[in-house]
Amino acid sequence: MVRGALVAVGDELVSGRVLNTTSFEAARILSSYGYRILEMVSVGDEKEVIAYHLQRLLREVDFLVVSGGLGPTEDDLTVEAAARALGLPLRLHQGILVRIRENEKAQGLAENPLRDKMAYLPEGAEPLSRDLSVAGFFLRHQGKLLFFLPGIPEQFQRLLVDRALPILLEAFPPEEEVFVRTLRFFDLREAEINQAVRERDLSGVEVGFYPVFPEVRVTLISRAKNLEEARKRVFSLVEFLRGRFPEHLFGEDEEELPAALGKLLRERSQTLSLAESCTGGLASSLVTRIPGSSDYFLGGAVTYANQAKKEILGVPERFLRLFGAVSREVARAMAEGVRRRFGATYGLSVTGIAGPGGGSPEKPVGTVWMGLSTPTETVARHFLFPGTRHEIQTLAAYTLLDWLRRYLLTGNLFPHYRFARE
Amino acid sequence: MVRGALVAVGDELVSGRVLNTTSFEAARILSSYGYRILEMVSVGDEKEVIAYHLQRLLREVDFLVVSGGLGPTEDDLTVEAAARALGLPLRLHQGILVRIRENEKAQGLAENPLRDKMAYLPEGAEPLSRDLSVAGFFLRHQGKLLFFLPGIPEQFQRLLVDRALPILLEAFPPEEEVFVRTLRFFDLREAEINQAVRERDLSGVEVGFYPVFPEVRVTLISRAKNLEEARKRVFSLVEFLRGRFPEHLFGEDEEELPAALGKLLRERSQTLSLAESCTGGLASSLVTRIPGSSDYFLGGAVTYANQAKKEILGVPERFLRLFGAVSREVARAMAEGVRRRFGATYGLSVTGIAGPGGGSPEKPVGTVWMGLSTPTETVARHFLFPGTRHEIQTLAAYTLLDWLRRYLLTGNLFPHYRFARE
Repeated sequence: MVRGALVAVGDELVSGRVLNTTSFEAARILSSYGYRILEMVSVGDEKEVIAYHLQRLLREVDFLVVSGGLGPTEDDLTVEAAARALGLPLRLHQGILVRIRENEKAQGLAENPLRDKMAYLPEGAEPLSRDLSVAGFFLRHQGKLLFFLPGIPEQFQRLLVDRALPILLEAFPPEEEVFVRTLRFFDLREAEINQAVRERDLSGVEVGFYPVFPEVRVTLISRAKNLEEARKRVFSLVEFLRGRFPEHLFGEDEEELPAALGKLLRERSQTLSLAESCTGGLASSLVTRIPGSSDYFLGGAVTYANQAKKEILGVPERFLRLFGAVSREVARAMAEGVRRRFGATYGLSVTGIAGPGGGSPEKPVGTVWMGLSTPTETVARHFLFPGTRHEIQTLAAYTLLDWLRRYLLTGNLFPHYRFARE
Repeated sequence: MVRGALVAVGDELVSGRVLNTTSFEAARILSSYGYRILEMVSVGDEKEVIAYHLQRLLREVDFLVVSGGLGPTEDDLTVEAAARALGLPLRLHQGILVRIRENEKAQGLAENPLRDKMAYLPEGAEPLSRDLSVAGFFLRHQGKLLFFLPGIPEQFQRLLVDRALPILLEAFPPEEEVFVRTLRFFDLREAEINQAVRERDLSGVEVGFYPVFPEVRVTLISRAKNLEEARKRVFSLVEFLRGRFPEHLFGEDEEELPAALGKLLRERSQTLSLAESCTGGLASSLVTRIPGSSDYFLGGAVTYANQAKKEILGVPERFLRLFGAVSREVARAMAEGVRRRFGATYGLSVTGIAGPGGGSPEKPVGTVWMGLSTPTETVARHFLFPGTRHEIQTLAAYTLLDWLRRYLLTGNLFPHYRFARE
């Protein structure tokens, strides 16, 4: 099997100020192509230490992915360390220098000679970014491939997948085919999924469970000499789990829960509007992160103050006075109001106590009422969510969107939820 | 300085199925006591590989914390690897064996000889758990300390803090006190901050730069014989950077940008409302993530559809027709409209093209107009943000909130922004 190693550079990593997610993502991606990651190592911003690991690992592996330490500042030492470890001089890359000056100009910045450093690469290195807008390069050295990528997670992942991976696949074609599928569940526990999986003969499918709040993801991996065989094994298990959890399994691979809801709305040419209090715009934000959401999302109101609930959504003053802002009556009125106000097929509302303050014995922190208004009826449900303010807001926003998703799937206005109180 | 290293064992780590949070937590805790973590390495369940790293690291460090691979199954190989690396035989620990049998009985499980494996420790090792209920032990070897802890995060952290740390502190009293402060900047690049830092005699302060999109964070660390000395050194540099970047430095340590804005509004007893189009509720969501934001945030409107811009915010139909939804006129009208509608001191608005679709030669993806309406005037600004849909939305939402923050600080309605186009 082709063997690789990952090196992440940065004092922020070894001092525990930043959680290293880049190596995790790289390991996941590279493993899915059948490469074996021998080790992942994080080190501080020290030239000798970085160089030591590069030399050590080059004796053990076929390829290395190094992240971090490519910036313009003095604690960015990866390039010098690489030059030292490989015995290569640094050479000025004229194209990168030009690009640095252009960037400075475009952004109205003064020329900063500190940035020139980023134009020096070890001899023989080639930049990875096509337009030279992002740091990162690769090198071939004694039959090995070395990739140097920025430590910023978004840049790292984009360059890894778009640029490094194709080069790697050409140099070291994987010996086995690997087929991976990730299934995404909402409002279901790992243990329940695990129990279902155990009823099956897995025959060559590795199953991994990992919760990514507020979801649970399950990865199915199969390795075989040919891809069709691996795919068949995985699909058989996917079908089984779809049949077993038709409502909780909302998506596969990159499909987000709000995108799954959006797909259903688009299929039906229906529209949505949102009235949010305790989630403060989070549900709208989750919906609108999805490209093309303007096809079905008309808009929302974040009615934090009671005045706004009355004026914008038409919640009757007496509901607020008699039942309080966190109540069945107000949730219903908000859902109905936002549906009418925006002229949408569906109105969803959420009002609750996200904490840390504002709780009471009758309505503790985590108490949330949600409303769903359809063209024919309006209902409200009561939830009690656990966790911090941020966790309560996140659980509430996802549950709100999931509620409509499950209603569209099944026609049932009251699907079971773990945190529902009714 | 006392030097340590962290080794995490498990196929799930090097295949990217599980994110390694135990090493991160350990690095954070050990660094805060002044220990320096030389490296953090993750390896798979392979006896030779584990043994190789133990031997290698024992030459480099004063102590080692190893996690994972202590369980009863066949892929748990850490104990055998340690015995091999240190040249020590395995010895049966009678107390652990008794405890294993007791546990089986208490849980109604059959005696399973596989579990006996957990009762064997390298010669000289002592269990860490007082009641022997959790795997984990430590060893002294040639003046070094080795801790072996379970990979389950909760067990790992409890044993580390309650049992390993006191032993470590006794064996290697930290030589120095450590004071750390993180400064957080918006709309400023690492290189600019670094250049400013270079003007100073740092005298014993380590400076680390790390971008956490869309911010730049700078960590100042000082080590000294007494804490007061370390604190004084850091504070002197903090003061200097505050003086140098009074607008861009928005917070310290855990202070988020929306919290910094909230503090200014609360001090002035002023209120805010938000009208969002392309950011789809993200700005509201950032504001309301902060506990107590209801003191100054009245609410917002997510007006994705033009109809909503007209009806809820009172944007004139002819503005939308003549200038389009992404225009100076509409941004102004949205800001004014939302301020009036919610009765807030300030109204902020954002309308733009987050992509990936919807761009044109005149208004490419990333084009954003923002409005700020105060009790005395209303202005709009034009931006062009780079990146993916999510990056454009994030930059726009942060810039929107930062604009008001800087206006409140300085009274200047047009502070400079890198991505402003005017």
